[in-house]
Amino acid sequence: MERLPGFRDFYPEPLPAADSWSADARSHIFNHWRETARCYGFREYDGPPLEPLDLYTAKSGEEIVGQLYNFEDKGGRSVALRPEMTPTLARMIAAHERGYKKPIKWFAIPQLFRYERQQKGRLREHFQFNADIFGESDPAAEAELIALLIDSLRRFGLTAEDFVVRLSSRHAWQEFYTRNGADPAKAYEFFQIIDKLDREDRGESDNKLAALGFAASGVSAFIESATPTPELASIIGNLEARGLKDFVKVDYQVVRGLAYYTGAVFEAFDRKGTFRAIAGGGRYDNLVGLISGGKTRLPALGFGMGDVVLLELLKERGLLPAFGAQVDVFCLIEDETLRGPSMKIIQALRQSGLAVEYSLTPAKPDKQLKRALELRAASSIKAEKSPEGTLLARVKDLRTRAENVGPIETVAALLAKPR
Amino acid sequence: MERLPGFRDFYPEPLPAADSWSADARSHIFNHWRETARCYGFREYDGPPLEPLDLYTAKSGEEIVGQLYNFEDKGGRSVALRPEMTPTLARMIAAHERGYKKPIKWFAIPQLFRYERQQKGRLREHFQFNADIFGESDPAAEAELIALLIDSLRRFGLTAEDFVVRLSSRHAWQEFYTRNGADPAKAYEFFQIIDKLDREDRGESDNKLAALGFAASGVSAFIESATPTPELASIIGNLEARGLKDFVKVDYQVVRGLAYYTGAVFEAFDRKGTFRAIAGGGRYDNLVGLISGGKTRLPALGFGMGDVVLLELLKERGLLPAFGAQVDVFCLIEDETLRGPSMKIIQALRQSGLAVEYSLTPAKPDKQLKRALELRAASSIKAEKSPEGTLLARVKDLRTRAENVGPIETVAALLAKPR
Repeated sequence: MERLPGFRDFYPEPLPAADSWSADARSHIFNHWRETARCYGFREYDGPPLEPLDLYTAKSGEEIVGQLYNFEDKGGRSVALRPEMTPTLARMIAAHERGYKKPIKWFAIPQLFRYERQQKGRLREHFQFNADIFGESDPAAEAELIALLIDSLRRFGLTAEDFVVRLSSRHAWQEFYTRNGADPAKAYEFFQIIDKLDREDRGESDNKLAALGFAASGVSAFIESATPTPELASIIGNLEARGLKDFVKVDYQVVRGLAYYTGAVFEAFDRKGTFRAIAGGGRYDNLVGLISGGKTRLPALGFGMGDVVLLELLKERGLLPAFGAQVDVFCLIEDETLRGPSMKIIQALRQSGLAVEYSLTPAKPDKQLKRALELRAASSIKAEKSPEGTLLARVKDLRTRAENVGPIETVAALLAKPR
Repeated sequence: MERLPGFRDFYPEPLPAADSWSADARSHIFNHWRETARCYGFREYDGPPLEPLDLYTAKSGEEIVGQLYNFEDKGGRSVALRPEMTPTLARMIAAHERGYKKPIKWFAIPQLFRYERQQKGRLREHFQFNADIFGESDPAAEAELIALLIDSLRRFGLTAEDFVVRLSSRHAWQEFYTRNGADPAKAYEFFQIIDKLDREDRGESDNKLAALGFAASGVSAFIESATPTPELASIIGNLEARGLKDFVKVDYQVVRGLAYYTGAVFEAFDRKGTFRAIAGGGRYDNLVGLISGGKTRLPALGFGMGDVVLLELLKERGLLPAFGAQVDVFCLIEDETLRGPSMKIIQALRQSGLAVEYSLTPAKPDKQLKRALELRAASSIKAEKSPEGTLLARVKDLRTRAENVGPIETVAALLAKPR
């Protein structure tokens, strides 16, 4: 029985096979994301992994359906596994934003799904750190969000030499587009050509641009100018005050493929250019209005950061710690008549918050000790009888080999929490 | 735009509406589950939320399809959103158990899905704490697993007066069944009648039992005897050694509905009998063999604990803490010319691991202070200029009102982490 193509099994380390993924690395990434978001005052939310299909077609048009895991449920509803979090979030915000002080700063770590038939060997699900701010039009919100993005990556040990946030602006592109007198209805088509410039055949892009009335040279000159708009200058100034200027640069080649962006947009890339974008986002001031049918209008911006590219980058840079079992204490049961008191010790230590392992069934002492070392236990503990017949606990630090013996009732005191 | 019926939106507290669920309570529950599992030496794993339909029909027969979110994907595969975790786990274990020392002790917190057309207003998804042990036949494994179940609930503040684990045995029931000379092929049918005894109309159950050749009085007498099998006695003795005897009792009314159990089975209930089962599980020694097509045979046992009943119980018992925003430090920016140095302070504090908030845009000082109090900030911090023009940081403990001033470079030292 096999899992579906494009889906992942997450195993505890050490990994048993090349095609398995590390549950420990996943926890490591999630914990760092959560911790950084907390430092920035972002609150966690979540929504359903299954949503009405309309939620996605309303925003991106019918063409998105080709990339969705969509189906009809038993009640005849057209539904889809979520391909991104923003529509769900916009729906949740539209429903209940009145209950929250602005700006609203929220994050989530959803699993997202895309079914693209042609892409063999490519993943059909991933996890994404999503952070969004609602109710603030000032570029200070972009700076706050991008600072969170930067610090989320720095927390893993990545530096300004590893990655850069390329900052751009739909406003700047819109102005360039309008200045050239092109058809207003085709602006999004134009953005999509720009978005694919560095991935598509140059000749093909040039032809497409020409069809919209643009000379490739004019587009290139605009990109190369890299003149920050006042909005981008404000964002960069704010990040500079935080000491984060080295992590950003203006780069108009970035425009983002999604239809809903309305202002600043940005993508984080590794500086070597080895990987796809690490993260991307921007301002989308009209989406809440669109999702709510015009009932609620709220400025908004956000980014998403996937787990797959990040994991590849951390691996390549050697920034993942060594994962594996890690118990605090291993309880050795060498005398089976003392299994009862040993269980009492184990229970007391676990209740005090320590991770404790032991042999479920009788086993040779050397086998037990070997297991303790495999599990990287910091200490061992053993129940013993004193010559007078009272019960003792013998604690041993498995690194220093220092020992400590005391009455069994004092076991918690004998063992200061080692981590 | 509405979410699908039976799905939940998780909002940060304070909750904006009666039909919204608390993301904070969810995190609280997940954190406690994870922490207890860690103390017991269980490692986290996860698998795909979407699996081949066969994975479920192989084990439970075609009748389960009526309760699944199943569909055909764009590649023509019959797939289903996972209704339970055990088949995925058995698949993962069957594939790679050789890479792990026994016993294997793993846990996961998957979201699970059931589509039952008739049940209006009932949830179609929930989260479930799953813990399993593989590779150990001794009842010591049951005791270890049930102790984890008990301590998972105690960690929330629940006591032996709040809940009990009702312990039963498929072996005992099988022996009773065989002793009565009933058709071996219909044993599972019999178990299902027993499983529904306390939910179904008594007369109907009695008729069904009679059809299989059983007198209701005989079944009742067996249940009332509550004589522990040697296996159950061993489990209870082990739990007694841990000081957990008050949390368990033998109760043969429990038999568990799922087909795959082979030995001890158990369910945790609140003692008042207000709620459905809090958790349930048992031994399933044949499932890995079944899923692997006979290639891998491994004794196994596990339990599942859902988030919905647990949350109801914790609410009813008043055991949920007050949730809400909680930042460590609020940075007051009263002089806009000092916004730059303030951003530097904010960045330094966040990098040191503190949760810091501030007003993104200029705001009146009293409004800023009000926001700091709403966010339950432990301290405020403010950049100031000394008469000599050097930059100072003024820290204020918002509970004691004690103040502390020092050069801006020493900001981290001025603020010992308050939590």
